Amino acid sequence: MDVKIPTTVNVDLANERRKGNINILELTHFLDGGEEKTNERKDLENFFLSDGQFLDKIPADYLSHKEKYEIAVEKSCMLFRKIKEYQERKGTGSSVSLFSSVLGGMLGSALIKNSTPFSLHYVMFLPTILGQASEDQQYHWLTRAWNFEILGTYAQTELGHGTFIRGLETEAHYDATNEEFVLNSPTLTSFKWWPGGLGQTCNYAIVVAQLHTQGKCHGIHPFIVQLRDEETHMPLPGIKIGEIGSKLGMNTVNNGYLGFKNVRIPRANMLMKNAQVLKDGTYVKAKNEKLTYGTMIFVRVSLVKNVAAAFLAKAVTIATRYSAVRRQSQMKPGEREPQILDYKTQQYKLFPAIATSVALRFSADWLWDIYNSVNADLDRGNMEGLPELHAMSCCLKAVSTSDAANFIEICRRSCGGHGYMNSSNFPNTYGMVTAAETYEGENTVLYLQTARFLIKAWNQLKSGSSVTSTVSYLNQHNAARSKYSHSLDSLLTAYQQVSAGLIRVSAEMIDSKTRSGMSPEDAWNQASILLVQAAEAHCRAFIVETFIKVLRTAPLSPALLSVLSQLCELYAIFFLLNSSGNFLLHSNVNSPADIAQIQSRLVQLLEEFRPNAVSTVDAFDIRDEILDSPLGAWDGNVYERLFIEANKSPLNQEPVNRSFHTHIKPFLRSNL
Amino acid sequence: MDVKIPTTVNVDLANERRKGNINILELTHFLDGGEEKTNERKDLENFFLSDGQFLDKIPADYLSHKEKYEIAVEKSCMLFRKIKEYQERKGTGSSVSLFSSVLGGMLGSALIKNSTPFSLHYVMFLPTILGQASEDQQYHWLTRAWNFEILGTYAQTELGHGTFIRGLETEAHYDATNEEFVLNSPTLTSFKWWPGGLGQTCNYAIVVAQLHTQGKCHGIHPFIVQLRDEETHMPLPGIKIGEIGSKLGMNTVNNGYLGFKNVRIPRANMLMKNAQVLKDGTYVKAKNEKLTYGTMIFVRVSLVKNVAAAFLAKAVTIATRYSAVRRQSQMKPGEREPQILDYKTQQYKLFPAIATSVALRFSADWLWDIYNSVNADLDRGNMEGLPELHAMSCCLKAVSTSDAANFIEICRRSCGGHGYMNSSNFPNTYGMVTAAETYEGENTVLYLQTARFLIKAWNQLKSGSSVTSTVSYLNQHNAARSKYSHSLDSLLTAYQQVSAGLIRVSAEMIDSKTRSGMSPEDAWNQASILLVQAAEAHCRAFIVETFIKVLRTAPLSPALLSVLSQLCELYAIFFLLNSSGNFLLHSNVNSPADIAQIQSRLVQLLEEFRPNAVSTVDAFDIRDEILDSPLGAWDGNVYERLFIEANKSPLNQEPVNRSFHTHIKPFLRSNL
Repeated sequence: MDVKIPTTVNVDLANERRKGNINILELTHFLDGGEEKTNERKDLENFFLSDGQFLDKIPADYLSHKEKYEIAVEKSCMLFRKIKEYQERKGTGSSVSLFSSVLGGMLGSALIKNSTPFSLHYVMFLPTILGQASEDQQYHWLTRAWNFEILGTYAQTELGHGTFIRGLETEAHYDATNEEFVLNSPTLTSFKWWPGGLGQTCNYAIVVAQLHTQGKCHGIHPFIVQLRDEETHMPLPGIKIGEIGSKLGMNTVNNGYLGFKNVRIPRANMLMKNAQVLKDGTYVKAKNEKLTYGTMIFVRVSLVKNVAAAFLAKAVTIATRYSAVRRQSQMKPGEREPQILDYKTQQYKLFPAIATSVALRFSADWLWDIYNSVNADLDRGNMEGLPELHAMSCCLKAVSTSDAANFIEICRRSCGGHGYMNSSNFPNTYGMVTAAETYEGENTVLYLQTARFLIKAWNQLKSGSSVTSTVSYLNQHNAARSKYSHSLDSLLTAYQQVSAGLIRVSAEMIDSKTRSGMSPEDAWNQASILLVQAAEAHCRAFIVETFIKVLRTAPLSPALLSVLSQLCELYAIFFLLNSSGNFLLHSNVNSPADIAQIQSRLVQLLEEFRPNAVSTVDAFDIRDEILDSPLGAWDGNVYERLFIEANKSPLNQEPVNRSFHTHIKPFLRSNL
Repeated sequence: MDVKIPTTVNVDLANERRKGNINILELTHFLDGGEEKTNERKDLENFFLSDGQFLDKIPADYLSHKEKYEIAVEKSCMLFRKIKEYQERKGTGSSVSLFSSVLGGMLGSALIKNSTPFSLHYVMFLPTILGQASEDQQYHWLTRAWNFEILGTYAQTELGHGTFIRGLETEAHYDATNEEFVLNSPTLTSFKWWPGGLGQTCNYAIVVAQLHTQGKCHGIHPFIVQLRDEETHMPLPGIKIGEIGSKLGMNTVNNGYLGFKNVRIPRANMLMKNAQVLKDGTYVKAKNEKLTYGTMIFVRVSLVKNVAAAFLAKAVTIATRYSAVRRQSQMKPGEREPQILDYKTQQYKLFPAIATSVALRFSADWLWDIYNSVNADLDRGNMEGLPELHAMSCCLKAVSTSDAANFIEICRRSCGGHGYMNSSNFPNTYGMVTAAETYEGENTVLYLQTARFLIKAWNQLKSGSSVTSTVSYLNQHNAARSKYSHSLDSLLTAYQQVSAGLIRVSAEMIDSKTRSGMSPEDAWNQASILLVQAAEAHCRAFIVETFIKVLRTAPLSPALLSVLSQLCELYAIFFLLNSSGNFLLHSNVNSPADIAQIQSRLVQLLEEFRPNAVSTVDAFDIRDEILDSPLGAWDGNVYERLFIEANKSPLNQEPVNRSFHTHIKPFLRSNL
């Protein structure tokens, strides 16, 4: 059977597109932030994707680990040349947004599927030099780094320490005689572990180490260290370096390890914009410790949009289109097998995922705006907005990555066995997103950071002080509760009541434990399970609030407003029913009748949204090259594409594998 | 740094072992089903593992897809020879339990990590011949299959149909002139898709096809079909065959596709124990359609124990030991970094997973017993127990595989970045377990099967009939509710009330919809989200009940009884708080005070169980070769083992990868 992809669109999918009543382009423009932005994005995508230059001839899943790496290096060089070409053609400089869309996010995932070993050069090496090097240092290092004379990474995490960076063990001792720092890895656990590109790729790194000078340790500081010879790429003396081995995903990032044995670097290699070590070894403290916060928050902010919301949008597009094409079972005797998208259980898997992807995007946009304004304030020396930005970036990063990862797996399973195929692109997408649940702040740790902010706000309020905008709803906590009547506003009120309730319960638990003689730290630990829930509840209330604000303020056509309102309500109802206990206890949704009503509203909403399901994911406007899945292609020719994908397997390139002759046949003849 | 694994046990882990107060061996024996069973298991493990014959020199994750397959074939031949050797030494025959422990489950996963392409020969090919071939056929085929003259698989699922087997499209037309069946794949979607070993490995298959004779279709029937030449292994004429491509996991199973174009097989190749086609083409119906149920239920039953409970036990062992070794952050200023196992949030991730693994094992044991007794009844023509066995096997398979998969991911993330390494063995373990959420009955479909049984029972009860034992609690549904007072018994009552409540709500919804004119099928669809919840609730009530029964009847020392009671309570409390809304609505746990009390009890329980956490996972008695994880090894030398694992990467075998010379260097010199 010679299988070709039909030039026509699958008829069920074509029908779905006729069913929808929204203007797809209107939604696309709105999600992109305007028609101009859409055009810019499409232009960029065309430039990088249309010539098929980055297409893998053999899917990477069939290659060896080493081959995958080598191809990623080759493609990375190609990619950076192409970026240069783009900049020249457009006359743009090196913009951060250009690099972040090409290296990460959706477009990036179509170019080098499991991410490039070069990315930390841009994401961490350059920004750290920009943020923490003195002017002299910048002149020297930035030039070399911008021009790609050297390739750098950022080495902070160690085998024994990730979360607790004060506990890092790598040492930099200042030797005033030679005006050098001497780097050492005193233990196995002090080996740097995880930095991307560190394994075989980069020749420089910013290394975070405990600074010792004049007999005293001054805590962790950043140093630029040359790792490999620029000519031969051989590791320099005293440097033990390699990759950390294969992982669940992101295997082309070339995460590495690094150990030092008496490695000497010039004094000038300590980044000295903030703290300094003078020639004689005198340590000069930084004026402002918090200035280094920026990069970390920046990465989290961008994860919410470019990883969580974006990759979830990819997964729901694939699963929704497949569910429109796939027909299975008989609902009614004699009738044709229904599209599986018509099963309520299937809708219950996919539509809340669609709603979440949109909801996260709106919250991500808010976070970007706040990040930019707080950053501008910081430059003017005003640090007022920092705690709230920090708290919101923590919980939004945690909620968005964990919801996205969960829903991606739900989407995968909703496609049955075919979702388990690597060609479906769910496994790879999950691998990228679940990694983000751990890196840049482990999610549980981040929730507890937000919780600290919330408990502080709660105590401020109790002592009569005022609080910032994202927690201002706590003011209403003592207001009389009206009976629940279903609407977006009352859903929001209920969410805020739950958040306030959980914050109150946690605070009371901490109080009562400490009053009975427990140390504050132990009391915090005892309350931590609740505190995590409080932080999550606060975040969801915020997401619902932000979604509603968008509905109230954006200039949308009635049809689109109606569909987005459905999604907002669906998001709110889905997560309400998911933790209905908290609502029954803490909000005005407090009767069996309320829950029953919301449950029927859920089923009704799924039905209302059903005709626009395919149109909505179409409006996410994700190119086939980015979806990279036979199940989700725009034309819906699922089975032909699955078959063609299967035949890319090297095992299918020969009728008989050699192991038949070497092993199977002798075995079958051995009269066992 | 030359890293060696210390010969000593990590000091924190050694301390943990002193803290526990249970007799580890007592628990091991109890979980195995007696000392003798433990010894048998250990004997088997020693035989297959002690000589290191199955150890991978290079971890499979570094190899290409084709290399992985070829090694799996080589190891499969080795394995079956070794099984034969074991049988001869022990004087045992071919026992099902021997094959199922060596091919699947924990021991199997240590031998051929991603499962063998030979396994369906035993798991499906042979049992189907045994169950569905006539005596004559058995004589011919069983001999060849038992002696491994041929290698078979079972081809049912097609590209277009998995769940709905009546919709299979492969056709077998009887041609009376030649006394042959003619097999055809009329469409692309009719291609067989997924059977293990089908790709490049097997030369025979049992093919399920729509039987047509004398101008009439008689539905699906099984046929034995030769696929490849026994000498050359070339696909026979008319047979299009290959593998379906790379997958999230289980990549050495060699799942394949298969299409037919006028493939002729003798009439005698239809398995005729039940239905028959006579020489002239006359179709003779089977006496009893349900006799073929057995194999399907058998596989589900064994999944609960050997996949869900077992692999979860593996994951919690790894995560718990690692959490005892890993120290991070400062809880109190100036104090040493605590073991992460001391964080309540970490305990909340791991201890419920331990409880679930034990709970699932007890329910799996119950299911085995019932399976055996129902099967014995079936042989006597008594089919009474079948519906209940079917209902329980469906929901237990669904709950156990989805809980296990969830908890394995929680365990992985609880180990931070190191859990993301393939060497942690979490990714592979997840890949095996999440596959079982889909195969052998997709979980949502299975829940709805159980729900049908529950709704039927509910209606029987309402009409005054009696119901079987697993649903007898529905009788108490109208009993007056007492105030909740915390105990295992009242927890169980609450679970049963929730299950009954959800069944009632679903039944009422179906009733009200049909009364208002909706078709029963549409009403069922509308209620299906609730029905799934009802089936899950019923299953959890059953799991809690079974656990309590074990505590009440097993001869356990007081110390062990106390720890197992903690785990039982922990299981019940964890899932109660997880869906507290249902409890507040449907059970006597109906006040804020009840929930608050249960929440504090949770924290207290985590504390009570803490000293025995490591001892409990030690008692699971999983050998290092089976755990196969630097994070979970018995000696706790986590960091040395991680480092050694990393250095197995082929990229680390040379100081400079060739791509530096071919790509990176030219790129860095190109003055970009």
